[in-house]
Amino acid sequence: MEGFSDGVFGFAITLLVIDIAIHPPGTPLQQVLHAWPSYLAYVISFMTIGTAWLVHTAMTDQLAKVDPIFLRLNLLVLIVVVFLPFPTRLVADSLHDPSSQRVFVTMYGLTLLSIRLAGSALDWYARDQQLYAPRDDDDDLPSDRRKRTPLLIADAVAIAIGLAVPELAVALYFGLAVYAIVPLREAARLLSRSRGSSQ
Amino acid sequence: MEGFSDGVFGFAITLLVIDIAIHPPGTPLQQVLHAWPSYLAYVISFMTIGTAWLVHTAMTDQLAKVDPIFLRLNLLVLIVVVFLPFPTRLVADSLHDPSSQRVFVTMYGLTLLSIRLAGSALDWYARDQQLYAPRDDDDDLPSDRRKRTPLLIADAVAIAIGLAVPELAVALYFGLAVYAIVPLREAARLLSRSRGSSQ
Amino acid sequence: MEGFSDGVFGFAITLLVIDIAIHPPGTPLQQVLHAWPSYLAYVISFMTIGTAWLVHTAMTDQLAKVDPIFLRLNLLVLIVVVFLPFPTRLVADSLHDPSSQRVFVTMYGLTLLSIRLAGSALDWYARDQQLYAPRDDDDDLPSDRRKRTPLLIADAVAIAIGLAVPELAVALYFGLAVYAIVPLREAARLLSRSRGSSQ
Amino acid sequence: MEGFSDGVFGFAITLLVIDIAIHPPGTPLQQVLHAWPSYLAYVISFMTIGTAWLVHTAMTDQLAKVDPIFLRLNLLVLIVVVFLPFPTRLVADSLHDPSSQRVFVTMYGLTLLSIRLAGSALDWYARDQQLYAPRDDDDDLPSDRRKRTPLLIADAVAIAIGLAVPELAVALYFGLAVYAIVPLREAARLLSRSRGSSQ
Repeated sequence: MEGFSDGVFGFAITLLVIDIAIHPPGTPLQQVLHAWPSYLAYVISFMTIGTAWLVHTAMTDQLAKVDPIFLRLNLLVLIVVVFLPFPTRLVADSLHDPSSQRVFVTMYGLTLLSIRLAGSALDWYARDQQLYAPRDDDDDLPSDRRKRTPLLIADAVAIAIGLAVPELAVALYFGLAVYAIVPLREAARLLSRSRGSSQ
Repeated sequence: MEGFSDGVFGFAITLLVIDIAIHPPGTPLQQVLHAWPSYLAYVISFMTIGTAWLVHTAMTDQLAKVDPIFLRLNLLVLIVVVFLPFPTRLVADSLHDPSSQRVFVTMYGLTLLSIRLAGSALDWYARDQQLYAPRDDDDDLPSDRRKRTPLLIADAVAIAIGLAVPELAVALYFGLAVYAIVPLREAARLLSRSRGSSQ
Repeated sequence: MEGFSDGVFGFAITLLVIDIAIHPPGTPLQQVLHAWPSYLAYVISFMTIGTAWLVHTAMTDQLAKVDPIFLRLNLLVLIVVVFLPFPTRLVADSLHDPSSQRVFVTMYGLTLLSIRLAGSALDWYARDQQLYAPRDDDDDLPSDRRKRTPLLIADAVAIAIGLAVPELAVALYFGLAVYAIVPLREAARLLSRSRGSSQ
Repeated sequence: MEGFSDGVFGFAITLLVIDIAIHPPGTPLQQVLHAWPSYLAYVISFMTIGTAWLVHTAMTDQLAKVDPIFLRLNLLVLIVVVFLPFPTRLVADSLHDPSSQRVFVTMYGLTLLSIRLAGSALDWYARDQQLYAPRDDDDDLPSDRRKRTPLLIADAVAIAIGLAVPELAVALYFGLAVYAIVPLREAARLLSRSRGSSQ
């Protein structure tokens, strides 16, 4: 199951590049710069799928066994992850087109939310059915879980904000993707160590 | 062989998203809603490839050895799985275009049927040549086999119905994909347990 | 190295479906039938990559070690395998367009030949540098090697024929792909056994 | 982590073929020959991703452990590798269009440089945090490291040259890709051995 899931995460993350494109009019440099919404959407979606994969890997590393329902819930995670390149394309196209922003940004936010919800459901099921190995020496999973509720609430808030100010919602999605992917404790440890060594 | 097959299944399932697109005319919301046949075809094909992968994994997990003919039959399974995104695209386009529905829905149904037939041939060959390990403590495979004949017959019936009423055939394909992917016994056990615990 | 190579073979084989498409004019059924060169090119290329993967797997299964040059030769195999979807697309488009057939069919044949030559170079290098494990209980590799010289000669002949009669060359490529993928000895054994059991 | 990274490298390298295409006007042969910038860009990008994968594999083979920050830096390597097909497409299109060459070739060079920088950062972090196993019997990694600084400097020089003479920069990128991928010591050993045996 891990090979298949890793493959699907990897393909979905790579497919994101297909929809980056530049369009006339303008000089070549203007066209390249004008395509910034494509790059932004690429980065947000890449970080989102990357985070989902990190959480998924931390989970599967701890699994002692799987059952048929877990395998199906895993496909549910994958079906929303694989779907993400579609709203990413829409949101990239819409950042220059105010009339369609509200709809596409909302759709994008709902997909991001679905990815987190499906991942949470998978983890919840694995815990409920005692599929994890008892020992827990990898502390990635607990730290992922601590971030989960804040992220779900923030996602919902950002979607609501996006109904009024779509651009702000995109900025929030970027911030949340950064928050989700940065390993806070590790980063703090590294920072304090390098500060200590420079004294 | 498993890595290669997992990769091909994973890639074929991910390619399905490339063909989801919205088209004018209409407001952005109307365009998004109007694309429902794309989403439906995406979900049916995703479930079909997902189920084929689940069955394939259950098979390869039990294999004690492979032989050259098994490897070729495996490529036969993959060639029809990889083909599926093409009729999926056709059927998604045709749900708004009655004139082409009959042809494309039939083609789609024949591809779904071919996927199941190729998978059955692979399993039949593995059993005939005693490629499986003798012990059978994973009960996924027997339950997959119990569903096989009903599914093949239902597929054939749905294809026949589609010649007269293509939309009904698509609804049937959706129902069959759900039936094929849901682990009935497990789901019943989970349901009865949660009912028991709520009393 | 095996995971990466398996992935690249798997992706290249799956990408072939992207270029299958139908085009107006005609009724839907006529369009579907008129696209037969796409299906034929899909099948030939799928069998060619499938065979290359089978040979590659038989090789890597026997490797006792790899060296830096082997890894680079392996990339050389992959660069020609990954290239194949491009001439496949050209040849599929050209079967309805006599003016471009000669060029595109020749290009297709040269790519098929390059895949076999690169695979042979990889095997030759591994043998020359004694990278294989001494024991040879898998007899896939010898049987692959016996087919190699006839296939290289037949490819070259088919390319030459294609300069005069492109359609005939395509038929030959199909025949050669079937010859390359069928495990002759195994098929004969199976056939004689089933004949024996029916007496 | 290795399966996921191998998948992403493999998929990014395969996606490069999607953007190879021929365009009217001209006879079929002229169109095929006229597309030489596509082939050149394909080969340079294929070698660059191939080299990045070889270095990445040599690194991951030696890892004794990973930590959360290493996993994120690894995603940073992947995000620039996955991005490469986009500037590859631009540079292939621009070699026939002098007005856009300077911008697109510079963008391409910056992406190549980013891939090397991200890979170096990953290796630097792994050494700084002692993630590698102490023994170092594989001498791929040291030889990769010896080439690193010359390559980074040469990349920067080529980017600067490209601002004045874009075509020359493309030729330099090709040369650097060849230099990066050829295993100098091994090639010299092979050459001297074959010279010795022919005397």
